Amino acid sequence: MFEKIQTAICQMRTVKPLILNITNYVTMDFIANGLLSLGASPIMCHSKHEIDELLTAVQAVTINVGTLDHEFIFLCQSVCHAANQLGIPIVLDPVGAGASRYRTETCLALIHDFDIAIIRGNVSEIMALAGLSQKTKGVDSGNDSSFLLESAKSLSKNINATLVVSGQRDFIVDHDRVAQFDRGSALMPAVTGTGCLLTAVTAAFHAINKDRFESAQVATLFYAICGEIAAKNAAGPGTFKTHFLDSLHGTLSRGQYEKH
Amino acid sequence: MFEKIQTAICQMRTVKPLILNITNYVTMDFIANGLLSLGASPIMCHSKHEIDELLTAVQAVTINVGTLDHEFIFLCQSVCHAANQLGIPIVLDPVGAGASRYRTETCLALIHDFDIAIIRGNVSEIMALAGLSQKTKGVDSGNDSSFLLESAKSLSKNINATLVVSGQRDFIVDHDRVAQFDRGSALMPAVTGTGCLLTAVTAAFHAINKDRFESAQVATLFYAICGEIAAKNAAGPGTFKTHFLDSLHGTLSRGQYEKH
Amino acid sequence: MFEKIQTAICQMRTVKPLILNITNYVTMDFIANGLLSLGASPIMCHSKHEIDELLTAVQAVTINVGTLDHEFIFLCQSVCHAANQLGIPIVLDPVGAGASRYRTETCLALIHDFDIAIIRGNVSEIMALAGLSQKTKGVDSGNDSSFLLESAKSLSKNINATLVVSGQRDFIVDHDRVAQFDRGSALMPAVTGTGCLLTAVTAAFHAINKDRFESAQVATLFYAICGEIAAKNAAGPGTFKTHFLDSLHGTLSRGQYEKH
Repeated sequence: MFEKIQTAICQMRTVKPLILNITNYVTMDFIANGLLSLGASPIMCHSKHEIDELLTAVQAVTINVGTLDHEFIFLCQSVCHAANQLGIPIVLDPVGAGASRYRTETCLALIHDFDIAIIRGNVSEIMALAGLSQKTKGVDSGNDSSFLLESAKSLSKNINATLVVSGQRDFIVDHDRVAQFDRGSALMPAVTGTGCLLTAVTAAFHAINKDRFESAQVATLFYAICGEIAAKNAAGPGTFKTHFLDSLHGTLSRGQYEKH
Repeated sequence: MFEKIQTAICQMRTVKPLILNITNYVTMDFIANGLLSLGASPIMCHSKHEIDELLTAVQAVTINVGTLDHEFIFLCQSVCHAANQLGIPIVLDPVGAGASRYRTETCLALIHDFDIAIIRGNVSEIMALAGLSQKTKGVDSGNDSSFLLESAKSLSKNINATLVVSGQRDFIVDHDRVAQFDRGSALMPAVTGTGCLLTAVTAAFHAINKDRFESAQVATLFYAICGEIAAKNAAGPGTFKTHFLDSLHGTLSRGQYEKH
Repeated sequence: MFEKIQTAICQMRTVKPLILNITNYVTMDFIANGLLSLGASPIMCHSKHEIDELLTAVQAVTINVGTLDHEFIFLCQSVCHAANQLGIPIVLDPVGAGASRYRTETCLALIHDFDIAIIRGNVSEIMALAGLSQKTKGVDSGNDSSFLLESAKSLSKNINATLVVSGQRDFIVDHDRVAQFDRGSALMPAVTGTGCLLTAVTAAFHAINKDRFESAQVATLFYAICGEIAAKNAAGPGTFKTHFLDSLHGTLSRGQYEKH
């Protein structure tokens, strides 16, 4: 994967793909800064009046339901419809699926009605989409479990999408293909939006590589390693976040890539 | 107070209370990150469609009127109503009360219609709620005055709530009980949302301790000491904010607790 | 300019002008923190119900169309109308003008209907307002070109406003007067909202100096030098942003002012 990451990062900084983010208000700033640090170009939008025009320049779309209401859902539907028409890949972050029926049902409806390339969530969110109940604790939590893998495979087949299941161990699942990584830092869940930003980063990698499974792998692994690099200089979540944005902006050495 | 803070911090990281924040758009990110650093679990919500369900898992609610409009006020009312029904404590931040009648009247109506456990604001905001005029300068300002204490006691009795009055000197008032601290850093008002976050942190401490007055004391004192710790390594508001999030994540030594 | 900057900074920290920001959701936190660091007082507002009252205390207004919809446009119109009545200067940030007709037309309508003192945007945004097409790439991008100068002069005359055109080289244009600076850091465009915050900082300097052209010069030059100072200690966009807020809070030495 090292060479794939290096190539992707290099392409990212040449292509600077434009990523349209239909996203929650809490982590917008972090998503925009993370994408800029990575080398991609973020754009946010709140009105259906400019969707069609903006999409002509956009290489990937993220949908993040972190702070949803009826108007927001309608906007998501409009953007997904237009993106599907144009063949622009959509990456979905089902924030808080499982925490409320409103969120779960909104995500399931989007998945049913539109072609979603990649879904990235924590364990409880992905389980909720698979129809398996697990009480969500806040939106930044998660735990890992191995039986989740079969549920994820089954969900991936049903909806024809790559799933990224974030947790202490990250799983990337597409039909029967599975990749998993035990990387990253314990400080990542202590910063709000690290999940949201990984969703956007995944969209950016998919924008420059049509292979959704490989893009999700490259994004997840690179992101986790950036977390490890940042953690080395961090004294807590504040300094970690700052250094994490720095590491997304940097390049990866062989030593950083190889697990110690 | 040192032992009380230590016990509360320890409980916080075991219980990880879920705090629902109905809050303004400006400081959402800081509130979420501050609560995560502290060890609590933040959740934000914008739609009445998920309130009832989310509240079943929530241990405390914060209402912050920093960027209000009619829809937002309606949401606040719905959440306060449901939280009161379930006995979940509400902590109110009357951002900008006194700066516009719209804000003052919204806060007074919430206080009148619902049981609010704790109100945290700066001097001019609390004075405005007490019916005393003092022109607010922005929403991050404040000054301290001793005659405010009697107004605060009287307001506390009228509405049966603990009041936290933030300023160079912090007051915690509940009926005739008063605590005051001269702690913190001059850099705190130079970071937007330090008041909003203290409100959320107070809610988190109240979520794990039914005594509202004691919770407010513990929260205010711990928060101010974290400010002192952060200021030691800060060269300005930017590095201060970063280190402040780190210090919320840490533990307190006896030396840091004792004032120099 | 050195003495002018020093005088302005000194006044800023004495007057602490209150700046009302009608602004997008992505960069609100950065704008509020940047203004606080500088010594100004930020206030944000989302409802027309408090505009008139808030404006009685406000020294300048910024309008930033970064995440616009119909309701937001209506709010902008109400604020601009009231600010013009009261003679409070307005500084406009035409975020994404040129990227969608919706944004371009909204900005052109505001410029047509109200007195705008200063407009600050990147090259493609200002070109779009001048009626010259140039495909916008995201909202954080920009390039510089010398023929843009004549377009800017012509636009400035037509609408009687100072224009600040941000890019590797910054231009300040008012009718036939032109100032230009080759300062700043390559890390500035890697942080979201550095343009938005410059708009707000320009409003803060104009709030304490009636000369709009001079205010825009002082703001742009001071801001760029703060970028240079921050870059010296930065390892990437994360640490840069942190140190940049610190440098806005500081003072300027002769050595930092003089270009190396």
